[in-house]
Amino acid sequence: MSDTQTQVPILYMVPTPLAEDTHFAVLTPQIIEVLKSCPLFFCENLRTSRRLISSLKLGIVIDTLEMHELDKPLVPAKIIEYIDRIVKSKGPACMLSEAGCPGIADPGAELVAAAHKRGIKVVPLAGPNSMTLALMGSGFSGQRYTFNGYLPIDPEKRSKAITALYNELKRTGTTQLFMETPFRNNSVIKELLKTLPPEQLLCIASDLTGKGEVIETHKVADWKLAVPDRHKIPTIFAIGL
Amino acid sequence: MSDTQTQVPILYMVPTPLAEDTHFAVLTPQIIEVLKSCPLFFCENLRTSRRLISSLKLGIVIDTLEMHELDKPLVPAKIIEYIDRIVKSKGPACMLSEAGCPGIADPGAELVAAAHKRGIKVVPLAGPNSMTLALMGSGFSGQRYTFNGYLPIDPEKRSKAITALYNELKRTGTTQLFMETPFRNNSVIKELLKTLPPEQLLCIASDLTGKGEVIETHKVADWKLAVPDRHKIPTIFAIGL
Repeated sequence: MSDTQTQVPILYMVPTPLAEDTHFAVLTPQIIEVLKSCPLFFCENLRTSRRLISSLKLGIVIDTLEMHELDKPLVPAKIIEYIDRIVKSKGPACMLSEAGCPGIADPGAELVAAAHKRGIKVVPLAGPNSMTLALMGSGFSGQRYTFNGYLPIDPEKRSKAITALYNELKRTGTTQLFMETPFRNNSVIKELLKTLPPEQLLCIASDLTGKGEVIETHKVADWKLAVPDRHKIPTIFAIGL
Repeated sequence: MSDTQTQVPILYMVPTPLAEDTHFAVLTPQIIEVLKSCPLFFCENLRTSRRLISSLKLGIVIDTLEMHELDKPLVPAKIIEYIDRIVKSKGPACMLSEAGCPGIADPGAELVAAAHKRGIKVVPLAGPNSMTLALMGSGFSGQRYTFNGYLPIDPEKRSKAITALYNELKRTGTTQLFMETPFRNNSVIKELLKTLPPEQLLCIASDLTGKGEVIETHKVADWKLAVPDRHKIPTIFAIGL
């Protein structure tokens, strides 16, 4: 942490909890220390970040913090403005996404890229990431894996995308992870069970780190015997060997 | 943690530090709690795991723990034996890799797959993962990414593999991450600078979470002006847009 006292501007990438009421369980001592020392924040969602900092009871008066929102997409003028704020700040800056790791399936990468160009030191901190947790819990190979982001919304395109992921798995052996907006989970599950062959293993990992966490890996044929209901529950899907 | 008191057998997937003397900084309170309550361990490296548990000063007498090594590969007879130990254990089991997340670029997935089949609850915990940290720190898109594991050792095959990763990036826009045995880092860096086009961005992320952490993203042409020395330093490489 000694860098916080030097002149090199620092941008910390700070992971945040994935589930309600887990902040004291899943945030590292290092994250707590960094949050305590940081006057400048770039947040996917200001309200969520304020609530998190407040719930950690760090003795910080939230209104004294300088907080900016990470618009999607972040326009070039904003990036220049934000980089300028980091360079001129008297302390380090933190980037926070709404849940999980900033920059992964979440905004932030453009600001990091600009930070590198400007010589700002970028320091990612270890913490909760739903793709990593799903992969660890799936039982699928973690020697090679792809996170494919969100599936297409259009049913026909979605069905084709699932087939493409399956073909990629068969061709390369690379574990394929993907996600969906939680209110569409059940329709994706229906589509997966229709499109994938009965012998294919499918992992459905929901409410990761939360009280309702459930991570199960079964053959498609077995999932069909009791189709799970994951409506509105944050979920990562994976197919693997 | 209340599940530890029930009859459902549990296998915790426990991330461990990536760098020396960081255990009190990067391990979550949840990990500490789980390690305290666990009588049964499956470890990539027994010595490393014993040293870690000892350094955490949990008040545990290491010799009272049942510890097994995760051979590579884990033969079917061992998997059956280990699953049996988990089912019969009076407390939860933990899987630990030498550094980072068990099952990701490390052994363990076969035991998790067998655990799912036997109805053991698999609970992955949040913690340090070098690929996730490198991706967050790179400034490359985290909307879609592939971790490709280790590059081939043979120079000709390695050169072809680098070209294939570059073509995949250009075709799909998916950020490509990969690694190398640390004592071959410098020869991979040389190969990357020779094979990739001058305008391509390359991230080299070394000693993640450690005192010597350095994460830099530059164009290949700029890297060539000052070729970095990363001999024997654990490093993740990434190319992206």
